[in-house]
Amino acid sequence: MKRICVDMDEVIADTLAEHLRRYNAAFNDEMTLEDLAGKGLWEIAPVDRQAHLRAILDAEDFFEDLPLMPDAQQVLKDLSARFEVFIASQAMMVPNSLGPKYRWLQRHFPFIPPTHYVFCGHKGILRADFLIDDLPRNLQSFAGQGLLFTAPHNLLAAGFTRVNNWMEVAAYFTEVSSE
Amino acid sequence: MKRICVDMDEVIADTLAEHLRRYNAAFNDEMTLEDLAGKGLWEIAPVDRQAHLRAILDAEDFFEDLPLMPDAQQVLKDLSARFEVFIASQAMMVPNSLGPKYRWLQRHFPFIPPTHYVFCGHKGILRADFLIDDLPRNLQSFAGQGLLFTAPHNLLAAGFTRVNNWMEVAAYFTEVSSE
Repeated sequence: MKRICVDMDEVIADTLAEHLRRYNAAFNDEMTLEDLAGKGLWEIAPVDRQAHLRAILDAEDFFEDLPLMPDAQQVLKDLSARFEVFIASQAMMVPNSLGPKYRWLQRHFPFIPPTHYVFCGHKGILRADFLIDDLPRNLQSFAGQGLLFTAPHNLLAAGFTRVNNWMEVAAYFTEVSSE
Repeated sequence: MKRICVDMDEVIADTLAEHLRRYNAAFNDEMTLEDLAGKGLWEIAPVDRQAHLRAILDAEDFFEDLPLMPDAQQVLKDLSARFEVFIASQAMMVPNSLGPKYRWLQRHFPFIPPTHYVFCGHKGILRADFLIDDLPRNLQSFAGQGLLFTAPHNLLAAGFTRVNNWMEVAAYFTEVSSE
């Protein structure tokens, strides 16, 4: 059975929406997703707000409360019947996120067992056929077939097989043999 | 550069010694490592003590305080100069251990960056050339060359390349090309 690894932030969890919401609330700002086309929040926020941008991620409740990406639950549930699905998240840069991410996955993706969670740093360590991820550098270090999940920061990245949303992920895998 | 994955519990951390110490303290017992030859603590402890055996692992401070395996630091430091070293721990069965394990690694193995930690369930997900692990089932699911690190519970396991301590690990890898 072929194996699919799925990233968390900005792929199944709408981390950016929550980050932006808390950033705007803290600075009484009105930054939008459109402002972020082709860029990360870190590149747009003024230097004197960078520490707060990081503090938002370090807050105990941040990764516990993230909204879901539309259709992620249903499509992953369907894919789990045909493929071996692993969640692979770069959690090591925010060690406070480890526990909250575990609990978030249990709550929203109860059909994926904890044996199939991988919290890592470097995605080159994954032995899998596919990786769905929003970060070009993760797909570059991965040895299988990468799928770039569209996010504002990667709109300008070229040379990847791109999926714009979870319905496109579903369509992609209907064409793929699971063996 | 070839890649070596290294398990934590009973390979670099003496989890069993601490588990046994807390078990004996709780029940005023005198179980020894010799009593455990070929068996796990779970197989020897009476049924009415199983819940406590688990509670020991769930305690917030357990994985924070584990003693080091002799020579693990020095040998891994030397190996890091020639190989890509990752720490790969089955942490998902005890989610409370995620933060403490992260901090323990930072304290005792500062030369291995957090990008090279992998907290997982199933070791078949690892893309590496070698895995040093005390659990035969982990080596069986791993796709590269496994090295069984001797622990009381695995003394009777046959059919594996075995290393009895960290000096034997060092000797094994002097014979291995790093490319």
